[in-house]
Amino acid sequence: MNHDTMIAPAEGWLVVAGLGPGADSWVTPEVTAALADATDVVGYIPYVARIAPRAGLTLHASDNRVELDRAAHALRMAAAGRRVVVVSSGDPGVFAMASAVFEAVEAGPAEWRRLDLRVLPGITAMLAAAARAGAPLGHDFCAINLSDNLKPWALVERRLRLAVQADFAMAFYNPRSVSRPDGFVRTLAVLREACAEAGSPDRPVIFARAVSLPEETLRVVALGDARPEMADMRTVVIVGSSLTRVIARDGLPWVYTPRSAPPDVAAGVAP
Amino acid sequence: MNHDTMIAPAEGWLVVAGLGPGADSWVTPEVTAALADATDVVGYIPYVARIAPRAGLTLHASDNRVELDRAAHALRMAAAGRRVVVVSSGDPGVFAMASAVFEAVEAGPAEWRRLDLRVLPGITAMLAAAARAGAPLGHDFCAINLSDNLKPWALVERRLRLAVQADFAMAFYNPRSVSRPDGFVRTLAVLREACAEAGSPDRPVIFARAVSLPEETLRVVALGDARPEMADMRTVVIVGSSLTRVIARDGLPWVYTPRSAPPDVAAGVAP
Repeated sequence: MNHDTMIAPAEGWLVVAGLGPGADSWVTPEVTAALADATDVVGYIPYVARIAPRAGLTLHASDNRVELDRAAHALRMAAAGRRVVVVSSGDPGVFAMASAVFEAVEAGPAEWRRLDLRVLPGITAMLAAAARAGAPLGHDFCAINLSDNLKPWALVERRLRLAVQADFAMAFYNPRSVSRPDGFVRTLAVLREACAEAGSPDRPVIFARAVSLPEETLRVVALGDARPEMADMRTVVIVGSSLTRVIARDGLPWVYTPRSAPPDVAAGVAP
Repeated sequence: MNHDTMIAPAEGWLVVAGLGPGADSWVTPEVTAALADATDVVGYIPYVARIAPRAGLTLHASDNRVELDRAAHALRMAAAGRRVVVVSSGDPGVFAMASAVFEAVEAGPAEWRRLDLRVLPGITAMLAAAARAGAPLGHDFCAINLSDNLKPWALVERRLRLAVQADFAMAFYNPRSVSRPDGFVRTLAVLREACAEAGSPDRPVIFARAVSLPEETLRVVALGDARPEMADMRTVVIVGSSLTRVIARDGLPWVYTPRSAPPDVAAGVAP
């Protein structure tokens, strides 16, 4: 037996990493270190474009809506001994690639369950948007992906109504796209109806687009003044609870939800 | 007029920064830079203890449950020209100091509304816990602070029931403390009842304690096997939705919620 055959095969690994919403100053040192040690980076084209090319690193950019194929590709490379980072915008566990990777693992060969597979958290878009606006998610809240590509619209609408009944602040991802122009129109209509039924029709809505990038925009309007065209696929929308406050000042107001809820809030609507 | 009086007063600022759950590798470069430029750091004792002392930096550590006093102290220093960082664990906008600062601003003098005040997001505990377990928050979810120090227990219970009806995955902060031993007992009882009513009694529960620290522990159990003593104040608890999957493997299983929901999920229970 010669020496070469005694060398163990390189230990591959797979990391699913969150790059945050855009600014390099929001990429965690943990993610930076994983990228520095990787042989392969896999992801949706605009996210892979954020990774600086270097010798020894292969970039695999793929189109949207091929998440399962991308995940399987990454898993195969890791199983073959490569050091692979799947990149997501924001946090990989929030409406991003981590679920797709585990879906592929569950459907894939048993050896994938023995892989060194780690998820590295990132700054998710709603928390970046909230930070820019103040602290609108400072009390109980929910996060809903408004795309009905992967779930029935009826479920989205049901969740909106129950979230208003629960008096959650609400963060919405993927509110509107060219191929889904109507969903956010219906979302606003459902919210207006449900918030009026809950006795609290007037609450702030934050439209945060491209947070941390040069083209960032932030807008705060009352629910009654919110318009569908204020959102697109690069916008996170946050709707306050009945307790959310607006602090007027020169320029954009600050929006926050107090930590406390008074006793009568619970009594407002029977479950 | 001598030269000294022509010097403008130093421009103070206030930053509310999230340090993440514990590991330095989860502190964003933006937060690190703000700390390097600060004259004062203000916060709860264990969070201030994470900041390395240096010349020119004053550390102001205070006890728990004095959030408004701490916020006002920080605002006064910033208004006086100091460069102040209020530190929170996790993300400052999620059950942490950002809301307290804005509560103080709203109740305080008008000049506080003209301050250079920014919130810097961080890795919040539920996303760190989710990353360790897999991707349990990969579909719509909610975040609930189980402490009833600042809200009536009836509101917590109401939100739990509505969250189960909405089929959200759920993340719970502050599940249990020495002074509130009973709340999490009731939480588990309500969840078992509500999940059984929803036709999906058996779902995974993740107990993630001290994530990223040397004493980190992670446990995954079925809802029926979850016990109150599995949680304390340093634990984040994540409960899956009806669709959350467990991938068995050697060691701890991976837990994830698929991106898709089938059409019949929405039809399950009428709103």
